[in-house]
Amino acid sequence: MLVDGEWRTDVRRDTGDGGEFEREETSFRDWIDGAVPGPDAEPVENPDFPAEPDRYHVYINRACPWAHRVAMTRALKGLEDVVSLSLTRPERYNEGWEFSEDQPDPLYGARYLRDIYTKADPDYTGRVTVPVLWDTQRETVVNNESEEIMRMLDTAFHDLGNGVDLYPEGYREEVDELIDDVYPRINNGVYRAGFAGTQAAYDDAVDDLFEALDEYEEHLDHRRYLAGDRLTEADVALFATLVRFDHVYHTHFRCNRRAIHEYPNLWEYTKDVFGTPGVAGTVNLDHITRHYYKSHESLNPKRIVPTGPDIDFSAPHDRDGLPGEPPAELVGDAAAD
Amino acid sequence: MLVDGEWRTDVRRDTGDGGEFEREETSFRDWIDGAVPGPDAEPVENPDFPAEPDRYHVYINRACPWAHRVAMTRALKGLEDVVSLSLTRPERYNEGWEFSEDQPDPLYGARYLRDIYTKADPDYTGRVTVPVLWDTQRETVVNNESEEIMRMLDTAFHDLGNGVDLYPEGYREEVDELIDDVYPRINNGVYRAGFAGTQAAYDDAVDDLFEALDEYEEHLDHRRYLAGDRLTEADVALFATLVRFDHVYHTHFRCNRRAIHEYPNLWEYTKDVFGTPGVAGTVNLDHITRHYYKSHESLNPKRIVPTGPDIDFSAPHDRDGLPGEPPAELVGDAAAD
Repeated sequence: MLVDGEWRTDVRRDTGDGGEFEREETSFRDWIDGAVPGPDAEPVENPDFPAEPDRYHVYINRACPWAHRVAMTRALKGLEDVVSLSLTRPERYNEGWEFSEDQPDPLYGARYLRDIYTKADPDYTGRVTVPVLWDTQRETVVNNESEEIMRMLDTAFHDLGNGVDLYPEGYREEVDELIDDVYPRINNGVYRAGFAGTQAAYDDAVDDLFEALDEYEEHLDHRRYLAGDRLTEADVALFATLVRFDHVYHTHFRCNRRAIHEYPNLWEYTKDVFGTPGVAGTVNLDHITRHYYKSHESLNPKRIVPTGPDIDFSAPHDRDGLPGEPPAELVGDAAAD
Repeated sequence: MLVDGEWRTDVRRDTGDGGEFEREETSFRDWIDGAVPGPDAEPVENPDFPAEPDRYHVYINRACPWAHRVAMTRALKGLEDVVSLSLTRPERYNEGWEFSEDQPDPLYGARYLRDIYTKADPDYTGRVTVPVLWDTQRETVVNNESEEIMRMLDTAFHDLGNGVDLYPEGYREEVDELIDDVYPRINNGVYRAGFAGTQAAYDDAVDDLFEALDEYEEHLDHRRYLAGDRLTEADVALFATLVRFDHVYHTHFRCNRRAIHEYPNLWEYTKDVFGTPGVAGTVNLDHITRHYYKSHESLNPKRIVPTGPDIDFSAPHDRDGLPGEPPAELVGDAAAD
């Protein structure tokens, strides 16, 4: 955010009076025409932003779990040639998310992601976050809320993809409930622990986090996916945290009560989702670890990147026997029989 | 140490040009009369410091793995009524190890441990470390090198204890080799990782550390104790690091490649040694975690203490079937049959 005329990302995380981490809201909340926001909602009518190929771009970072939802949905739905994507560099210092020679801005050659925000709104002074859904035609940010971008790619762009449906009718209410439960307790729960400003805030956050993980460990004992037999957006949301947990949240955010690879069901589930065609390509552990350990001086002043546990997301999993299978569009006829 | 007239402990850890951690040597190195320094050595003759009850005191801290060697040897040998012991408070800030109302200095009511050092030598300007072996008669530090104090309690004070021998004849050469191997690779190896000043120094340290842990995992596959069938000083030395590893070194020192409780043999071995009568009372996880997480601002600026993994050192172990058993003096006739 802009503080005394200077862009600062080191102050963007607010903590309340009790030292608890409080995440600020995102700012751009337009919807793509035809998107279905919720279980009983009519498709959005918004002629300003029709779903069409070669028009929209997403800015993400491979480290960010919120951005990961968007990259993963795009990959699972085969939208790589429909919606373009580019990366900011993994490390985020005081100037915020930035582009680099390795990760240039393909649209405008911008130096910082904040330049994209101010291109959309010259008066913008809020948080500069990924993901960003950018409209190259109207040259503006459509939306920068990960859950909504995920939903738009899944519903508004559905006919432009491979047919994979991560928000299938009959599952929608449950998917939304799961997303709404996983978000505060797990997705944001690790941040509550990591950015807690006091021992009491940390203790509360860690208790809540592991209570939730224990519950989902149980939940996944007889279900292949969160909503039962179908891979859905709820799995995308949970996976983005689980795949980062042991390398980053366990050590860097001090969530060291238990590692995901020590939870039988959560670990097998993580490998199962990782092995779903398209997903592995969205996971970049190098970017993930470099980002967290190098960007947060308050947690890791030396900015040394730990090696992390010796675990293999691509190892075989034991979830095949549970009801449900990966989307038939991704695994071919054999699995779709 | 004394820097520009001010006591500083935050500068006591030197790093070399390549960012590698280098531990400074300790300063007081006298020996108790009758101690056996090495495998082929004659007992030390030093009439200044005869081994006798009610004369010597050890200052330790429950968090410090070096001091733990001394407390553990004293407990295993039943020397609690022979050599007195007191604690410094767990947290160590800029003034160094200090006493407190909860942990007062029973001898002189000193405020800081440095006052004990300067009582022994008014010109002392070196590191103020635990353990300290103090002679209440001559009012001086006999020795502040943990390995040597352990050896003195074990040999010079042997006849004053319960008969447990942690440096038995026939094992001495192997015990010394093990201690000399475990020290740089594991005991100090975790510090090399934690206090590395550069990524390269960290990477080297972690590689070396886990190579050593992997080797000892294998070493302990067919041996109940490091030197075979007898509990020795080598086990005391290794245990002091293993029992701290998962709560502190794994997270705080970023040694997160693998936890000790994930090594089958090392974990069973740790529980086995922990269960040896006398040992559990020398382990204070509260002091251990409070010390590390609160004392090292360069690693944990918020000084929040993580909860640590949910593991139980007192759970049953599977080492009973291996050749060897805990010292008969400790477990009674049943196990000594």
